[in-house]
Amino acid sequence: MPQKTHFTSEITPDLDGREVALAGWVWEIRDLGKVKFVILRDRDGMIQLTFKPGKTPESLLELVSSLNKEDVIAVRGIVAASKIARAGVEVFPQELSILAKAKPLPVDIWNNTSDLPTRLKYRAVDLKNPRNLAIFTLASEILRAIRDTLYRHKFIEVFTPKIISTSTEGGAELFTVLYFERVAYLAQSPQLYKEQLTASLERVFEIAPAYRAERHNTDYHLNEFISIDGEAAFMNYRDIMDVLEDLMRSVVSVVKSREDRLKRWGLRPALEDVSGIPRVEYEEALAKLRSLGYDVKWGDDLNVEMQRALMKYYGPLYFITDFPADLRPFYTKRSEEDPKKSESYDLILNGIEIVSGATRVHTREVLEAEMRRRSLDPSAFEGHLSVFDWGMPPHAGFGLGFNRLLMALLGLENVREAVLYPRDRYRLEP
Amino acid sequence: MPQKTHFTSEITPDLDGREVALAGWVWEIRDLGKVKFVILRDRDGMIQLTFKPGKTPESLLELVSSLNKEDVIAVRGIVAASKIARAGVEVFPQELSILAKAKPLPVDIWNNTSDLPTRLKYRAVDLKNPRNLAIFTLASEILRAIRDTLYRHKFIEVFTPKIISTSTEGGAELFTVLYFERVAYLAQSPQLYKEQLTASLERVFEIAPAYRAERHNTDYHLNEFISIDGEAAFMNYRDIMDVLEDLMRSVVSVVKSREDRLKRWGLRPALEDVSGIPRVEYEEALAKLRSLGYDVKWGDDLNVEMQRALMKYYGPLYFITDFPADLRPFYTKRSEEDPKKSESYDLILNGIEIVSGATRVHTREVLEAEMRRRSLDPSAFEGHLSVFDWGMPPHAGFGLGFNRLLMALLGLENVREAVLYPRDRYRLEP
Repeated sequence: MPQKTHFTSEITPDLDGREVALAGWVWEIRDLGKVKFVILRDRDGMIQLTFKPGKTPESLLELVSSLNKEDVIAVRGIVAASKIARAGVEVFPQELSILAKAKPLPVDIWNNTSDLPTRLKYRAVDLKNPRNLAIFTLASEILRAIRDTLYRHKFIEVFTPKIISTSTEGGAELFTVLYFERVAYLAQSPQLYKEQLTASLERVFEIAPAYRAERHNTDYHLNEFISIDGEAAFMNYRDIMDVLEDLMRSVVSVVKSREDRLKRWGLRPALEDVSGIPRVEYEEALAKLRSLGYDVKWGDDLNVEMQRALMKYYGPLYFITDFPADLRPFYTKRSEEDPKKSESYDLILNGIEIVSGATRVHTREVLEAEMRRRSLDPSAFEGHLSVFDWGMPPHAGFGLGFNRLLMALLGLENVREAVLYPRDRYRLEP
Repeated sequence: MPQKTHFTSEITPDLDGREVALAGWVWEIRDLGKVKFVILRDRDGMIQLTFKPGKTPESLLELVSSLNKEDVIAVRGIVAASKIARAGVEVFPQELSILAKAKPLPVDIWNNTSDLPTRLKYRAVDLKNPRNLAIFTLASEILRAIRDTLYRHKFIEVFTPKIISTSTEGGAELFTVLYFERVAYLAQSPQLYKEQLTASLERVFEIAPAYRAERHNTDYHLNEFISIDGEAAFMNYRDIMDVLEDLMRSVVSVVKSREDRLKRWGLRPALEDVSGIPRVEYEEALAKLRSLGYDVKWGDDLNVEMQRALMKYYGPLYFITDFPADLRPFYTKRSEEDPKKSESYDLILNGIEIVSGATRVHTREVLEAEMRRRSLDPSAFEGHLSVFDWGMPPHAGFGLGFNRLLMALLGLENVREAVLYPRDRYRLEP
């Protein structure tokens, strides 16, 4: 049999009369006695295969009777436009091979009656669910749109090491790695590396795993997640917010183009479009929250509940900017007009922080002072600090949590649904 | 001063008379008394800034005298086509700011007199070398070309976990991670995950770090490297070799388009073009090697020296196919005609193996038998094996070492030159 010539989504009525080779999984079998229908599923959709005496070789009719759900089959057949079949088209098979038999599945991918722990335990099976196929094909298209946006803004892609010798930023809990004779750690972010790279490659981005050994066990924390990091020389936080606005616009237009498929499987995209993203100063956000009855004072961080409350004023997607400097990491640049504040921002989608960023400190003396202020010892960062002696440009950047973006965009209830094989406090398998 | 409006590479004679804003680093200062030249370097190239009385504001002339090499500057000025200046163009600055001063560098980025250990110790500085800028901007463009090729072949991008609970494939040495109360490992490859994903997402690729705790300390081994992995349902190893041929064609055309810049900095691309890539059966390769005097018998693996020797017959880029099955991992499918052989291949560039792949076993019973044959205990792989019960398609795939590809393509002597921050047996910093 020839290689698969088409994905099911490519079988349209205008192929009427054409021979095609398909391959995929048996989603459903409808046996009406003489006439039998098999719904074939592949990554991109479903198609009806119609078997009936006269149109179907005799031997195939018997083979069809032996099929089980999720058996893997390959089919060669003739496309026929149809007024009855879903999608207006069906295929009359002339040849059929069973490539693999399937036992009954441990996850109900048809009616979604399995709970999340069961689904994650048998994740490879759960991923056959058309809802998951819609999520993860979309994820790939979103990644592509994000990269294209960053290329357009002249960022180049880099990879920095995930095994590091010391805590990157201080504070966060790290996973320990035994590296030959030495103790090392898994990087919580590429922060210091990407800043260093602005001194040579100017505008860089990295899409790679990041690690947090936090003992959280919530619906929106992961211990291994995909971080999209960008950093650019000769830009400030406003320039980066411009880039992110463009980035979110591309992302939402990809989601929009896949809306039918998403809705068919019960997914409700959070954003219709992105025109401009409101940039709300922290102080203004505080005032709004107080007017809503929240007891929040200058210097407090905002929590998810507050971020949700602010949607009333700013919609589902907004920046909060100019946070108190002491709420942010040591490498954050203070505002020139008011050093209590910083040139920083978060991007909030559906109440969830999906991006965090800032203009960075680019002089060694200030960086050392900010470290000391946070009880970090500059001598532990000598390798990094010395880079600032040799021509470090002003720079700014962002860190975007890819799984959270996907979760918030699609209104998923748990971030684990936005990862193929999640790693959390108690989950190290499969 | 406005944001950088142009990269230096974008300043061409046709911009004559236009005002531009540039930013970058002082590469060279030529002081001819009244007239002074500053060569400004940025990520994409260099441009001559010309300061002369009458054309340059008085205050700038003084400022220029205070410049040191690698100071970070921003400039606003007027472009002028020139018959004398390199690239046929220069800029007459009207405004200049020193954004950061630089101390003398610990690496000679001008004359390449520093040795590799020094360069890697001060890697952030070493990366300012135009040769490195050429390598790593090209790396990003190659990655883009590779992804575009895989998208064209309908692969989608995925991410699989790098923290795993058991050895993926048996055999290789793994780094240990302390994962809360448990002992875990860093993945040596996404092999089993990507195979599982063919049962849902059909054609997947992943570009991510991979880890080998090998004690090698050679010029072509790394302990953390970027692995480009692809796996596709309903394909065999010949189909995958077709994809790889297309992929290498795109990669080489990117290199070709950057040839001038690469050659200027002493880099000699290994390939002029890719028409068809020879597919040499292992047995034929053995015969050729014997005719060259190598003492090699059926069942032996080929080493770098032999792979270099074969270039005499097949050129700088060729596949070796149909290896003895027992030389390959347990998941490799045996040939149907001769079960001593396997549906496997390596892709050799400049004597170095850059890709390895095969058609995979897709039935549980065979997989278990192949495990036992290699003294692996199937019960340790139960989670993976069970996926084969629930509709596993025939599939095939590849693993491409990105850093080795870059090394071989550009004729670099050491794979560490093809990584921003290498990790090796003795190197965990910076």
